[in-house]
Amino acid sequence: MRPTGSLHIGHLSVLQNWAALQDEYECYFSIADWHALTTGYEKKVDYKELIREMTLDWLSVGIDPQKSAIFIQSQVKEHAELHLLFSMFTPISWLERVPTYKDQLQQLGLGGEGKDLHTYGFLGYPLLQAADILIYKATAVPVGEDQIPHIELSREVARKFNYLYESVFPEPQALIGKVPLLPGVDGRKMSKSYNNTVSLTASTEEIGSKVRLMITDPQRIRKDDPGHPEVCVVSKFHKIYSPDTQRIEEECVAGKIGCVACKKYLAENIDKVLAPYRERRKYWEVEGKVEQVLLEGAEKSRKTVAQTMNEVREAMGI
Amino acid sequence: MRPTGSLHIGHLSVLQNWAALQDEYECYFSIADWHALTTGYEKKVDYKELIREMTLDWLSVGIDPQKSAIFIQSQVKEHAELHLLFSMFTPISWLERVPTYKDQLQQLGLGGEGKDLHTYGFLGYPLLQAADILIYKATAVPVGEDQIPHIELSREVARKFNYLYESVFPEPQALIGKVPLLPGVDGRKMSKSYNNTVSLTASTEEIGSKVRLMITDPQRIRKDDPGHPEVCVVSKFHKIYSPDTQRIEEECVAGKIGCVACKKYLAENIDKVLAPYRERRKYWEVEGKVEQVLLEGAEKSRKTVAQTMNEVREAMGI
Repeated sequence: MRPTGSLHIGHLSVLQNWAALQDEYECYFSIADWHALTTGYEKKVDYKELIREMTLDWLSVGIDPQKSAIFIQSQVKEHAELHLLFSMFTPISWLERVPTYKDQLQQLGLGGEGKDLHTYGFLGYPLLQAADILIYKATAVPVGEDQIPHIELSREVARKFNYLYESVFPEPQALIGKVPLLPGVDGRKMSKSYNNTVSLTASTEEIGSKVRLMITDPQRIRKDDPGHPEVCVVSKFHKIYSPDTQRIEEECVAGKIGCVACKKYLAENIDKVLAPYRERRKYWEVEGKVEQVLLEGAEKSRKTVAQTMNEVREAMGI
Repeated sequence: MRPTGSLHIGHLSVLQNWAALQDEYECYFSIADWHALTTGYEKKVDYKELIREMTLDWLSVGIDPQKSAIFIQSQVKEHAELHLLFSMFTPISWLERVPTYKDQLQQLGLGGEGKDLHTYGFLGYPLLQAADILIYKATAVPVGEDQIPHIELSREVARKFNYLYESVFPEPQALIGKVPLLPGVDGRKMSKSYNNTVSLTASTEEIGSKVRLMITDPQRIRKDDPGHPEVCVVSKFHKIYSPDTQRIEEECVAGKIGCVACKKYLAENIDKVLAPYRERRKYWEVEGKVEQVLLEGAEKSRKTVAQTMNEVREAMGI
């Protein structure tokens, strides 16, 4: 995950999914600061603060340094070395054909958000990702649907390496987690830049006031008007956070529950989920703890990749 | 220099030039094994042996580990890191426009020697070179004329970095050494693959037999026929190795010196140059010495680049 600073509840299912994977797999969770530079090289960002905030969120939700390595990509230089070595035999056309390449060029590029992304690094970003994955001999990578082509590229790179030199890399599979798409409180995409998020660290009061802002059925004027849950932001959140979604929908449609009460109930349910995370966060917030986790994570990662890199160098003859 | 194994006297003036620079500059001499992979990824080469042989030649001619760092590029991982960081803001078009890119694609590529060079690494090779140079904050780089565009690219990269972030890099200048072009003994380009070289390690006898193979004026049948030095390979070597070129040319044109005597004299003069190198080589050939030089060279380089990389990371905010 790129270091974007503190996360919001739109990210929660991904983190919960990661937390669950820890019991099944040996996990490496990377804070991809080099990747952040592929699209954000032009302004200087204080990644240190963003990294600290995001790591705290990970730890709060239950990513556990006793089980998994949590580390900053740029602190494991071997990722850059393997990326360079992979570049030797990776056709430019493989990279140009990654669907996200042209999409993002359009969305973020000079025709879109105005970033000049005709750079060597932006073209090579899926190859850096392939190195990030294969350097751990990963068999599985938890990603969203949009990332499937990147996992496919990783497999192609693994196959070509194994064919040209020696069989070093397994072919990783994408683990597609079920990620419900939550809108922001205003009904648009949830995004910090729209200021429509509920932060993972929100207090009980903040949750309440954010939920009160949520857009409901505009046609419902009075409490006993029949509601339309399918156009209501609150309803989408109930589906994730409330145990009795069906009852609430029925009461809404029947005009038996008003929006105020409905929102209050949602806020309580969201708070029930976030409260233990806030508790755990207090433990990790103590100065020096996050830094220690990241140091140890990088150390563990370096140990793992040292083995891979020895095999890679041996196989390539250097 | 790429690790090509043992060198021949066609390389000598470059090495002598390097040796002389050591008294004027703090020098870093890199064995560019990663660069070798940009055009030679397809077959596994034993770089260890090639590196040992080439290093021995460097040391023999007077590259001095007391004065300079002699190291293997791939042992200083920060070169890969800086290459990656530079890639973030380097336009693809800068790389596509490097004149050697299209030239080499043609010469070595599928239309030429048959290598598939449409790879990400081959496109990025001048950028790796920029990292190799700038990571030492080099002010001067001894190169041949064909490398001038690469030094220009390094300057552009330095300028863009200094502009986007902080002023970290000086702009390096090309030091164009006077490199006389010596033909092979058969008159073609001197090249190991043509088997027409005089090795730097050639013994007195080997020098003699190689010089005897040199192509002379084909129109000169008898010893007292007038010769034509301008078409004679031996003459080209006299110009470099013999103190009295003019006298020999005059005697040749006048038919006063025969080719056998002329060659014998050249062989003696080449031997006078190579003999001290052979002597010095004996010292370095002892097992473990070259390895020690390369270890210490890499260590010295890593110390130098650690400072640069701290500044780079700080400037980019990671």
